[in-house]
Amino acid sequence: MKKEENFSEWYNDLVEQAGLTDKRYPVKGMNVWPAYGWKVMRHIDTFIRQELDATNHDEVCFPLLIPETEFKKEKDHIKGFDAEVYWVTHAGLNELDVRLLLRPTSETAMYPMFSIWVRSHGDLPLKIYQLVNTFRYETKQTRAFIRVREIHFFESHTCHEDEADAQRQVEEDFVILEALMKRLALPYLLLRRTEWDKFPGAHYTVGIDTYMPSGRSLQLGSIHHYRENFSRPFDIKYEDVDGTQKYVHQTTFGMSERLLGAVVGVHGDDKGLVLPPDIAPVQVVIIPIIAKGNLEEITQNTRDLANELKAAGIRVQVDEGDERPGAKYYKWELKGVPLRLELGGRDIANGVVSYARRDTGEKGTVLRKSVGEDVEALLLKISQDMRARAQQRMDSSITTIDSLDDLPEKWLRFGWCGTEECGKKIEETADIKILGSPYVKEEFHGKCLGCGKETDTVVYAARAM
Amino acid sequence: MKKEENFSEWYNDLVEQAGLTDKRYPVKGMNVWPAYGWKVMRHIDTFIRQELDATNHDEVCFPLLIPETEFKKEKDHIKGFDAEVYWVTHAGLNELDVRLLLRPTSETAMYPMFSIWVRSHGDLPLKIYQLVNTFRYETKQTRAFIRVREIHFFESHTCHEDEADAQRQVEEDFVILEALMKRLALPYLLLRRTEWDKFPGAHYTVGIDTYMPSGRSLQLGSIHHYRENFSRPFDIKYEDVDGTQKYVHQTTFGMSERLLGAVVGVHGDDKGLVLPPDIAPVQVVIIPIIAKGNLEEITQNTRDLANELKAAGIRVQVDEGDERPGAKYYKWELKGVPLRLELGGRDIANGVVSYARRDTGEKGTVLRKSVGEDVEALLLKISQDMRARAQQRMDSSITTIDSLDDLPEKWLRFGWCGTEECGKKIEETADIKILGSPYVKEEFHGKCLGCGKETDTVVYAARAM
Repeated sequence: MKKEENFSEWYNDLVEQAGLTDKRYPVKGMNVWPAYGWKVMRHIDTFIRQELDATNHDEVCFPLLIPETEFKKEKDHIKGFDAEVYWVTHAGLNELDVRLLLRPTSETAMYPMFSIWVRSHGDLPLKIYQLVNTFRYETKQTRAFIRVREIHFFESHTCHEDEADAQRQVEEDFVILEALMKRLALPYLLLRRTEWDKFPGAHYTVGIDTYMPSGRSLQLGSIHHYRENFSRPFDIKYEDVDGTQKYVHQTTFGMSERLLGAVVGVHGDDKGLVLPPDIAPVQVVIIPIIAKGNLEEITQNTRDLANELKAAGIRVQVDEGDERPGAKYYKWELKGVPLRLELGGRDIANGVVSYARRDTGEKGTVLRKSVGEDVEALLLKISQDMRARAQQRMDSSITTIDSLDDLPEKWLRFGWCGTEECGKKIEETADIKILGSPYVKEEFHGKCLGCGKETDTVVYAARAM
Repeated sequence: MKKEENFSEWYNDLVEQAGLTDKRYPVKGMNVWPAYGWKVMRHIDTFIRQELDATNHDEVCFPLLIPETEFKKEKDHIKGFDAEVYWVTHAGLNELDVRLLLRPTSETAMYPMFSIWVRSHGDLPLKIYQLVNTFRYETKQTRAFIRVREIHFFESHTCHEDEADAQRQVEEDFVILEALMKRLALPYLLLRRTEWDKFPGAHYTVGIDTYMPSGRSLQLGSIHHYRENFSRPFDIKYEDVDGTQKYVHQTTFGMSERLLGAVVGVHGDDKGLVLPPDIAPVQVVIIPIIAKGNLEEITQNTRDLANELKAAGIRVQVDEGDERPGAKYYKWELKGVPLRLELGGRDIANGVVSYARRDTGEKGTVLRKSVGEDVEALLLKISQDMRARAQQRMDSSITTIDSLDDLPEKWLRFGWCGTEECGKKIEETADIKILGSPYVKEEFHGKCLGCGKETDTVVYAARAM
């Protein structure tokens, strides 16, 4: 498996070999989550819940099926999804009067209820989220975690008194996002999507994009400000302090199992996965190094070591299998375990434990007596280093260009006058996608690559993964 | 709300008023889980995961959609579900070549993969589970948690070398079940279903039934031994030590959100929910009893008390709202909070905290200095007492009969010769359902209520909720 030579093949092989997914289910684009992959995803979910709970979002769970009649209430929305949804038309032996669709996202499932729940300003802000399966009928080539037809997904939905309070929610979402991305050791850009690329029905959309080593961009999720675009058709109104009826302003924030796809693609190497410690099902694997006559001593010592680490809250596993140490290294490297500890006769004699970092391969020893603290510190360091390296790779891949000739397979940065005409011309000419302008404005002065006019607006573009 | 007078109406009102469900979603039988109800359900899920993980089941997640071609492989199975499944026939603007159905349960989703996963005796036993949404097109009157069309559900599936090892799994499932039911303070019977009522495709089915105060039985879940009934059509084979290819023996164990329905029905009263402490989102509510001039002192004392209980791992909430204590009692009783603590000037002076149990209404005081331990002990006592009372009610409702005349609205117990002819005759004559004979055989000697023949077989029957 060579990541540099053929990223796509490397990725497709690795996700199955490491036990993250099983693509042999008899429906294309719908994959099985085997135990190991599901454990990683559930760790990601735990952090999502932690951040959303801490910011006073309530977890709820809405039905999967949405009546066609509700789905059609917001016109841009249905247009955006018309070609992508699965339709339930029959139940048992009957044809349904109203067709039901499998949620591609839950605006049209939730908002009829919001219209009942929201009565007065005292009910606002309303902040809820759910972690569910969603469905999109992808016609392009599918790819595990990145382009699938059943998608593991979280979505938060909020209602606010006015545009400014909704805007405050968008800013809070950025804080939540940063906390999550730190756990995953992933760098990202916040790019405000073009008008023709924003979410169907949104006032504006901020895309959360990361850079894949293939040179492509990967959208990890998005944050939308809806203004009153959904509250009007769904009649979500509240009585203000002065007694007037007002439409709420809404936002949403959603991310999917693509987070796991990004972790695989950004951090993995030719030996396999490299998992950030916070989401690794096994954070530390201990390999007993047995020599003649010391089996019992080493076994006892590795078990004691494991118990001590467990007590410190570390997810640890001892590999007592019959294979030689080399075969064990290979296996746990493939699985992406962040830290390997080894304990042999010499280590015990010297009062140390040997370690090898998965991310850098660096080897060393820590003192046996302070192993709990030292391992915790190492795991933190691994996480920080992984992110710093990924950030550096992303930053260095961003290439500012002033012509569309000889484009590198990288993230491109250039001037744009802001018109749809020029934007679409650039996209077509260069076969790229404009991801948008940085949400936090960047200092820039240059020329639009479409019409040549002077402009202060810079945009990022790339081929999408 | 009068439970005794009209159980059905009481139940339907309570589940919404207490915030467990919202039935106003625009598809009948598909309800919204609001925050409070979802919290309770997630506590139940946590215990399910805990027990299954502890018995070496791996959590996985399979796709929701099953191709019609796979679904049709086991003939009895499809017959059992034909009239109850939802069909996806279109995706985007296309009609699908192979129709997909929404899983009613996951045998036919999982077993094509098991056929790939299981290769040799070393792969066995295979023990997995998932917590997912399933779908049944119910045509009968729906009822929250008890008869819904989208069902929150757990299912464990296992493969074994032979019938005896599968049988051992069934016995392990009973142990898991007992641990769960203790948490929920629910009594139950294990009844081996009749041949015409067993799960489509099963060798035998053990129903897990509890008794609802309405006089009806409620099936909470089931445990099935499949023998080779699925492994043959799905070709799940392993190579035994002697090199021969053998079909695996399989079992499943599943329970649903009905567990929550049973908790509501069995424990609730005219004041509202009564939640077993283990699954209560708020286990202890603290009401500050403010008198003139002591607002600050009481506020500080209640917050200190709350922090101390939190540190002891208890889920506690202080109600600092403006309502009078009586209004707060009413609100938290409706929500089923197991224990209410009150703290006023006199309590502080006496070095005590006053309490009221939700289950019995009993009031008393505990010493302030030992409040952590005492509250833990009280919560445990509440849980044990709730179960003992429910068990006693269930036991006393079981009525052994020797004639079908003037049947009480209770659980009935009577002799049956074991023939389908007599069984169906009894069911029809008395408009009841035979739930089956006790899995652990009960000493009995009497006459079959169908044909009058002497028999040692006793069965339980009831009207199904």
